[in-house]
Amino acid sequence: MTNDLNVCLTPVLIPLYDVEKHVVVIIDIFRATSSICYGIENGAEAIIPVSEIEECEGYRPHGHLLAAERNGEVVTGFDFGNSPFSYTAEKVAGKTIVLTTTNGTQALHLSRAARRVVIGSFLNLTAICNWLKTQNENILLVCAGWKNNFNLEDTLFAGAVVEQLKHSGFKLDDAAIAANDLYQTGKDDISQYLKKTSHSERLKALGIEKDIEFCLQVDLTTAIPVLDGERLIKLQ
Amino acid sequence: MTNDLNVCLTPVLIPLYDVEKHVVVIIDIFRATSSICYGIENGAEAIIPVSEIEECEGYRPHGHLLAAERNGEVVTGFDFGNSPFSYTAEKVAGKTIVLTTTNGTQALHLSRAARRVVIGSFLNLTAICNWLKTQNENILLVCAGWKNNFNLEDTLFAGAVVEQLKHSGFKLDDAAIAANDLYQTGKDDISQYLKKTSHSERLKALGIEKDIEFCLQVDLTTAIPVLDGERLIKLQ
Repeated sequence: MTNDLNVCLTPVLIPLYDVEKHVVVIIDIFRATSSICYGIENGAEAIIPVSEIEECEGYRPHGHLLAAERNGEVVTGFDFGNSPFSYTAEKVAGKTIVLTTTNGTQALHLSRAARRVVIGSFLNLTAICNWLKTQNENILLVCAGWKNNFNLEDTLFAGAVVEQLKHSGFKLDDAAIAANDLYQTGKDDISQYLKKTSHSERLKALGIEKDIEFCLQVDLTTAIPVLDGERLIKLQ
Repeated sequence: MTNDLNVCLTPVLIPLYDVEKHVVVIIDIFRATSSICYGIENGAEAIIPVSEIEECEGYRPHGHLLAAERNGEVVTGFDFGNSPFSYTAEKVAGKTIVLTTTNGTQALHLSRAARRVVIGSFLNLTAICNWLKTQNENILLVCAGWKNNFNLEDTLFAGAVVEQLKHSGFKLDDAAIAANDLYQTGKDDISQYLKKTSHSERLKALGIEKDIEFCLQVDLTTAIPVLDGERLIKLQ
């Protein structure tokens, strides 16, 4: 039987899919899922994604590292923000980190019923594609988007995954075809391609251009973060 | 001030936009908005889009033409279905038609608060673009999609509109950029491009390939249908 390879362009559309019949890949390239991949690669014991700073604060008694950021600045009293540069081995090895991320957390929450929920980014692109090829399951690539709407960077990454899987016998939906065609358009210089987006201007205004370049590196890592209860841990 | 040119990829995303600050173009290429453009061009006095066959039936006492179709067949007792070939001058001139269309009606309903709601299709592409250029308003292109999800044919048409407007000083959102890039990919042979979609297989199974070819004709008409209360009439 042919398995489906579907792309969900924003979390708002998740209810249109039977997530319980899919392995779900959560995608939030700038910057949540990139930082999560990097942190798990660098030996973080677990990463707990939460929506609100108050919720993050609630984990303080547990002795976890707390990551909270607003408008590109680390919130006073927190250990660090959402930059992947905060997720180096020196900082996170053996630690549990609580990470505030609005778009990514909502996508995760709505995907909980899936057969498995894993985390993708350009950093672990080939690792996650190779793993997906071995699963013999329907696959749903969930773009976290921006404030519930479509964004190009998450869609381009979904298209990069489709690129690696499309000759493995999956049936693609229209969104998977579109994501892959957009990836074809942008793949020769993704950084340059994304510069024309309004989102890019917004991120530039936040002064996180170095983060953006970091998040667009392909195959820097091989760890696959997987959801285990409320925690993201390394897939064994 | 720069006006926005935004693309709403499915009706589910309409609430994310301030429709009251936009002129909205409703897009349902296969086949509702194509048939509506063709019918208004051919002298239909008005077209009333409704969701359900029962609702359509309710208009029988008014003496209107009733168009209802399920699975590619005209419903027994109705005048015709959704094929654009039913909307010729001989059949519709001077008449009011009540048309059942699930995707398109929902998109219209959710866009009612807009500054103006007009109907677009490849048939009236340049006419609607030329009119939009004169409006000095924010523009939202609403893809009716398929069962609330993304589809390629509506998105490609949105990209064709963006193509004609993008050098007129609008600010594009990510979805408008994506739609335009997809249009660039498919524009040389839209019919061939759409053949790779699963939706295309579904439509083929319905035996409406001639309708599809008809709906992909560019600039066959110049009339712009506009929403006036619950009726679509010709923009004067």
